[in-house]
Amino acid sequence: MKTKVLFIFLICLGYSMNAQEIKLPAPDRSGGQPLMKSLNERKSARSFSEKDLSDQQLSDLLWAANGFNREDKRTAPTARNCQELELYVILKKGIYFYNAKEHKLTLVKDGDHRKSAGIQDYVADAPLNILIVSDSEKAASSQYSYTNCGYISQNIYLYCASEGLATVARGAFNKEELHSLLQLPKSHEVLLAQTVGFPK
Amino acid sequence: MKTKVLFIFLICLGYSMNAQEIKLPAPDRSGGQPLMKSLNERKSARSFSEKDLSDQQLSDLLWAANGFNREDKRTAPTARNCQELELYVILKKGIYFYNAKEHKLTLVKDGDHRKSAGIQDYVADAPLNILIVSDSEKAASSQYSYTNCGYISQNIYLYCASEGLATVARGAFNKEELHSLLQLPKSHEVLLAQTVGFPK
Repeated sequence: MKTKVLFIFLICLGYSMNAQEIKLPAPDRSGGQPLMKSLNERKSARSFSEKDLSDQQLSDLLWAANGFNREDKRTAPTARNCQELELYVILKKGIYFYNAKEHKLTLVKDGDHRKSAGIQDYVADAPLNILIVSDSEKAASSQYSYTNCGYISQNIYLYCASEGLATVARGAFNKEELHSLLQLPKSHEVLLAQTVGFPK
Repeated sequence: MKTKVLFIFLICLGYSMNAQEIKLPAPDRSGGQPLMKSLNERKSARSFSEKDLSDQQLSDLLWAANGFNREDKRTAPTARNCQELELYVILKKGIYFYNAKEHKLTLVKDGDHRKSAGIQDYVADAPLNILIVSDSEKAASSQYSYTNCGYISQNIYLYCASEGLATVARGAFNKEELHSLLQLPKSHEVLLAQTVGFPK
């Protein structure tokens, strides 16, 4: 009997641990539209359908945004390679931290918190909001961190242009609310948000 | 006799006016490597050959960086579409302003001023240094302008990755010296520099 209970406990624990993480499929590191075509089609869009991105699209998008393209360096540079910027994503099912090194998502908070992603109505329609978070203890300077945000944000723009997705970078959000929702330490700050989804 | 002198004067004036401008060939708005491959190969490099970029490469690079991809919008976004950022280029033959609307270069100062592009030795080897200049009278905020610099700089990185060119973004340069060399008004500031060339 004791063995049976232990067995059920281990299964439950295993299930619970899996729910805490989303392992992303390997990103496509060679495809997409030609660069100049993507640049030609880059734009901001503010109307989104509810439709979810596929797991492959989510994987490709996050890797494109701020993934590792070499052992210790990323698709987006940071001054002195400080790598002070990390991504959080707000999905319908919860808020996750993007662990770039292991290319997986780790649950931060369960549930649909899309309305907290910004002050614009469309943030709650879109299946995905990306938050770019800086750690001031790692950063070379605040100015550099804002510049580095732009690198990541442009990667998102270009991926969306290449994939026919809609996106817009946003500076307008409740910084304190997001800081609390993401359970960030004091040295961390949400610098920029970006909404992504299929165009409506 | 008077007519002949006037004719020669007009030819000289025409020649002189032409030297003030470099009309760039139309940019390629559809080609280049696939986006994900460009992201995979994006990196910083600090060693450059003296070899010049072709006119077509210079055209494509500047359009990719901050050209118009729509009537009133560009390849790189700015908050509230303020478009406070413009590019200057330091070539072997002189310093030029990139007129994005007309996709041409306008001479600011004759001669080889590459040594003034930064404090690093390699800036004088490279055939091209790009300076990203902000106009605070147009900008939504200083933070946004730094973020917007990142968008432009990443476009340069990705174009170079796609084209097999070497590049590195630089925050280290003599801001006052460049301000004077570029003959900038008070409201303008050089925010970021980027060196581009063939890898050595």
